[in-house]
Amino acid sequence: MSTELATDPTPQNAKTGSSHPLAPLSASELQAAAAIIKASWPAHTDLHFKVVTLEEPPKVEVLKYLEAEHSQKPLPALSRKAFINYYIRNTNKFHEAIVDVTSGRVEHNVLLGPFVHANGDADEIVAIEKIALADEKVQAEIAKLQLPEGTVIISDPWIYGSDGIGDEDRLFQCFLYLRDPMNQSEADSNHYALPLPISPVISSETMTVIRVDLLPTGADNTIKPVEKYKIQPPNEYIPEAQTLRTDLKPLNVVQPEGASFQVQQQGTSSVLSWQKWKFRVGFNQREGMVLYDVRYDNRSLFYRLSLSDMNIPYADPRHPFHKKSAFDLGDVGAGIMANNLKLGCDCLGSIYYLSAVLSDDKGGVVDMPNVVCIHEQDAGIGWKHTNYRTGRAAVVRSRELVLQSIITVSNYEYILAFIFNQAGEIDYEIRATGILSTQPVDEGVEVPFGTVVHPGVLAVHHQHIFSLRVDPMLDGYSNRLVYDEAFPMPRSDWNPHGTGYYVQETIVEKSGGYDIAYENNRTFKIQNPNVRNPVNGKPVSYKIQAPPFQKILSDKDSFNYKRAEFSDHNIYVVKHRDGELFAGGLYTNQSRGGTGVRSWAERNENVKDDDFVVYIQAGINHVPRLEDFPVMPCEILKIHMKPVNFFDKNPALDVPPSEQSFNKSSLLSEQHQQPSVEAVVGEDGTCCVPKL
Amino acid sequence: MSTELATDPTPQNAKTGSSHPLAPLSASELQAAAAIIKASWPAHTDLHFKVVTLEEPPKVEVLKYLEAEHSQKPLPALSRKAFINYYIRNTNKFHEAIVDVTSGRVEHNVLLGPFVHANGDADEIVAIEKIALADEKVQAEIAKLQLPEGTVIISDPWIYGSDGIGDEDRLFQCFLYLRDPMNQSEADSNHYALPLPISPVISSETMTVIRVDLLPTGADNTIKPVEKYKIQPPNEYIPEAQTLRTDLKPLNVVQPEGASFQVQQQGTSSVLSWQKWKFRVGFNQREGMVLYDVRYDNRSLFYRLSLSDMNIPYADPRHPFHKKSAFDLGDVGAGIMANNLKLGCDCLGSIYYLSAVLSDDKGGVVDMPNVVCIHEQDAGIGWKHTNYRTGRAAVVRSRELVLQSIITVSNYEYILAFIFNQAGEIDYEIRATGILSTQPVDEGVEVPFGTVVHPGVLAVHHQHIFSLRVDPMLDGYSNRLVYDEAFPMPRSDWNPHGTGYYVQETIVEKSGGYDIAYENNRTFKIQNPNVRNPVNGKPVSYKIQAPPFQKILSDKDSFNYKRAEFSDHNIYVVKHRDGELFAGGLYTNQSRGGTGVRSWAERNENVKDDDFVVYIQAGINHVPRLEDFPVMPCEILKIHMKPVNFFDKNPALDVPPSEQSFNKSSLLSEQHQQPSVEAVVGEDGTCCVPKL
Repeated sequence: MSTELATDPTPQNAKTGSSHPLAPLSASELQAAAAIIKASWPAHTDLHFKVVTLEEPPKVEVLKYLEAEHSQKPLPALSRKAFINYYIRNTNKFHEAIVDVTSGRVEHNVLLGPFVHANGDADEIVAIEKIALADEKVQAEIAKLQLPEGTVIISDPWIYGSDGIGDEDRLFQCFLYLRDPMNQSEADSNHYALPLPISPVISSETMTVIRVDLLPTGADNTIKPVEKYKIQPPNEYIPEAQTLRTDLKPLNVVQPEGASFQVQQQGTSSVLSWQKWKFRVGFNQREGMVLYDVRYDNRSLFYRLSLSDMNIPYADPRHPFHKKSAFDLGDVGAGIMANNLKLGCDCLGSIYYLSAVLSDDKGGVVDMPNVVCIHEQDAGIGWKHTNYRTGRAAVVRSRELVLQSIITVSNYEYILAFIFNQAGEIDYEIRATGILSTQPVDEGVEVPFGTVVHPGVLAVHHQHIFSLRVDPMLDGYSNRLVYDEAFPMPRSDWNPHGTGYYVQETIVEKSGGYDIAYENNRTFKIQNPNVRNPVNGKPVSYKIQAPPFQKILSDKDSFNYKRAEFSDHNIYVVKHRDGELFAGGLYTNQSRGGTGVRSWAERNENVKDDDFVVYIQAGINHVPRLEDFPVMPCEILKIHMKPVNFFDKNPALDVPPSEQSFNKSSLLSEQHQQPSVEAVVGEDGTCCVPKL
Repeated sequence: MSTELATDPTPQNAKTGSSHPLAPLSASELQAAAAIIKASWPAHTDLHFKVVTLEEPPKVEVLKYLEAEHSQKPLPALSRKAFINYYIRNTNKFHEAIVDVTSGRVEHNVLLGPFVHANGDADEIVAIEKIALADEKVQAEIAKLQLPEGTVIISDPWIYGSDGIGDEDRLFQCFLYLRDPMNQSEADSNHYALPLPISPVISSETMTVIRVDLLPTGADNTIKPVEKYKIQPPNEYIPEAQTLRTDLKPLNVVQPEGASFQVQQQGTSSVLSWQKWKFRVGFNQREGMVLYDVRYDNRSLFYRLSLSDMNIPYADPRHPFHKKSAFDLGDVGAGIMANNLKLGCDCLGSIYYLSAVLSDDKGGVVDMPNVVCIHEQDAGIGWKHTNYRTGRAAVVRSRELVLQSIITVSNYEYILAFIFNQAGEIDYEIRATGILSTQPVDEGVEVPFGTVVHPGVLAVHHQHIFSLRVDPMLDGYSNRLVYDEAFPMPRSDWNPHGTGYYVQETIVEKSGGYDIAYENNRTFKIQNPNVRNPVNGKPVSYKIQAPPFQKILSDKDSFNYKRAEFSDHNIYVVKHRDGELFAGGLYTNQSRGGTGVRSWAERNENVKDDDFVVYIQAGINHVPRLEDFPVMPCEILKIHMKPVNFFDKNPALDVPPSEQSFNKSSLLSEQHQQPSVEAVVGEDGTCCVPKL
């Protein structure tokens, strides 16, 4: 960084001594909040904490705070509150509470249910793995596989997607795999290459196996008794199992004067400044990285930006695979699954890391080091023009600021990044990688809902549907959502050659689900009609560019569809309400729908010139290829947000020109001109004999 | 580079002494070809050469050559031929010829027409600029503007898009602009900020102004007499006119051991090898960069890849703006407009440049130095998986090889790049930048077909429609085009929960125009049904991922539609025929349609398991923003081609792991853990007082 301001003081309110209202709970706040809830129960009641996280103050209160903050005025006092979910351990008594950490008061503490279940947590998932394998019924089925002595079996617990059949209780389904029997000591062997046809189902209330499902492995839904397992060769992803290519030369990114960004660490949140951008970074158990109060050149753009949810429904209609439909944020949590990013391995260049603290299942804290990496990257040419008359080229490179988190969801990885550039643009980038979720398949079987990626291994088609939550405040709090469309002009005296076309803007009046229509170039824009561009009088706007995706394929009567309330439209817009943050609803695990963005939209509220929130969906219909196994190359999605008549000229116009004195590139070709080389032909007339 | 093999010998055929059959014409070949044509006319006939370029041998002959080349067998003899277009200077006598440079024989030499016109060339365009300004009728109109003494007027010649009305002759339309009168000596002043309402029309046959069009400047198509011009403030893009930002720190890309690619320069073409990729790079007047014989790990993928054409129709229906519909490749030429790329300004890192020679209008040669830059870039994480049980992360970075050209088309720039990665993927990236084409507009006027981007300046909406030509040879010459679609399964006993879906493949049997259907996840694949993946028996394939775009908006009876034969479908597939390379036809300037890919497709030929060519379209409906002026930030489009069951596992599995010892990243945060900082509050209770 350019300065040594890395660890600035926590700004505190003079009266309350509290942190910034949008700063995540600190370790002491987390522990205090849990302790307050514990104290509300009889001594020795064993509570199983699921979530202890910042309860953000009402937006209207925070806005007053932000106004005071930006105008250097005295700050209003805002209590620090925690949102808490917990069970009475080993019961189904699931609670939701709000605790005022400042006053020590319990504001709200209710028993939830029925059909409301908590997310999984790490300790629980590890316990379930073990219970599944230790169960006698499971072991009896495993015995039928007639595996070699000492074979290691791995159990992958999976969220139990609802189907309304016997799923009132909170359940987990496990999928079992072998570790390569020839390589038993390798704990990082890829067990997904050796799937077994046995799936224990566990109640998390009793922590017992309640049922052992057997998996269909043929082309139909026949369930065969478990029989001797044919052990196929392994398929490893770890580098020591490969013959690595040796011809890749190092490529280093060097910033001799440091990076161009500044980080002010203020307690548990950080304020980033870079190239006229300024925003606050938070981090929580569910969403991971959250950006607040995003501003450009001191003009407000967004109140809050975060990944709100994702859903991954699978295509195999057969029991029990039809229950594979995960909500990785709501069912587990993007924050708690975040990787510790290692220097030089996950980001390249000059890196700044942010760390976090989250809660554990006992009301204690978990350190989450290096969960966000921040770096700059070069993004090619930013703009260029050559005057062909003078030959003079004006060219600037595009520099980007990247905030990246990586989450591991059992077999799978998502690399999630906010990317800012010098032209006032924000991208949200999703890279999908990791290992396909696999299941056993009989030899010679082909199915239209999956791809055989290894002998005996089926990778089923699945959708990844992401929902980015955008809470705008473009030059103020009263915005609207509009869309532009382009239409051909009819033939007339005005358009005699049939070549004219025009762009028409439509205002979105009501909350609802809306779709991009690429055939009309339909482009959604967030707009402030009260602030006009000084040059052309158009309202200041940011447009949304989202990639096309196939909407959820599960039918409208299915639990999959009902639960994934964001999965059926490119855009949802709803009137802002405090506490409505998650497009699939607050409690997604074994949810039954009715609590997410589709339901909020059905309130049919006015969103025009009001406080609204936009959910932008993007997705992949992942039809696996062999190239996706044993680990898949990143599939990349990007959502762009770009200014439209927000600035009065290209905001990157003032970027210094791209010059060799600054870039310090190296010339590989000795001769800058193409050499004229004498011919050297092989003696027998064959081609391409290199003259060494 | 890793070796000093940069200038390897030209491989030559022992019998003929000629170059590789796909190598561009050398300087001596270009001159010889022109001389042969000159010699076919009476002495002192003044020929105006438009194109002298390699006439590629029939594909069937080249394939035999390539087979011999790759198996190190004696090479067949193939004559070197030139394709030539020329006029008898200052006449409309436009000719097409093919000359055998090896034998000196004229094979074909015909007069073309009517309605067949050549591309513009640089000398001609400069001459037209001057003729427009020198004309008395034009000067009389300019006088009415009552400009200050010494005002510099700039004339931008434009291609005269056909409308069938009095356009039998070859014409140019010019648009006139002022240089900022307060800055007359600045030759790089942005004249597009000061457009004039006068448009001279020039015949290139007589090189005279045949008409002076006046431009409508209001909301309707009224033409007002020229009156006193209101000079608005300038809007400059050159850096010295800006207050440049000062907080951007250098970012250098350093390859201490050189780059990972190797270039064998073989006469006028180069063979590139990088990370199992190998291909030949050519360069010609029309397409610029062309890739031939693209192979991965010695398996053939593509016979030929190039940008085939582009069309830019404008939305303003009024005369004469309705004639703005350019085909930048056919009307001028991507090769001849290519920028000389400067070290460190257009590419970053360790750069290798390719240069070329093209023909001039007199049958001589033009050196085109540094028209292609080649470099490696880091593209973030390639793949990652963390074993949550052991905590071990396996991660590789994605390295890319970029071949980039930049073309300047008068006001506008395109940055065109082929990008290869280690996962067997090829991207074609298009960046649109440069300056909007502008026209005058009266104060206070708003129109639905354009955006006011500066006082008095209208930037009209326009489409950019690109056509990438892909001539495949996936593991051999007999391929097919298919598409996959995903559909929900109907409810049944098989699909009781309504969650199942399946993927269905359809074979494209006949030549035609086809569309991506994002709602079905319709994905086109090039496939070789005779080569099966050893793991799952699926045919080896490459899929095409193209971004959505709005098809041409001009109506089906318009000249715009008839001429832009590629503009109405995402995909065109046609049976291969030698010489059919350009999706808009061989002669696009003032074309009338009937000679491009739509017409070829109408032959309704079999393309299944045959030799076919795919044209992939991508585009932008550019609705200008203020942010696009005075120079626009790059708008980026990418077409991806990715292997599907072509490899038997992730082809990037053998990339060495991402490690700090290799990457040499820098840690900016002194403390790797989030510090717990003491509070420091402003004395008056205000926020954010940094402790310096």
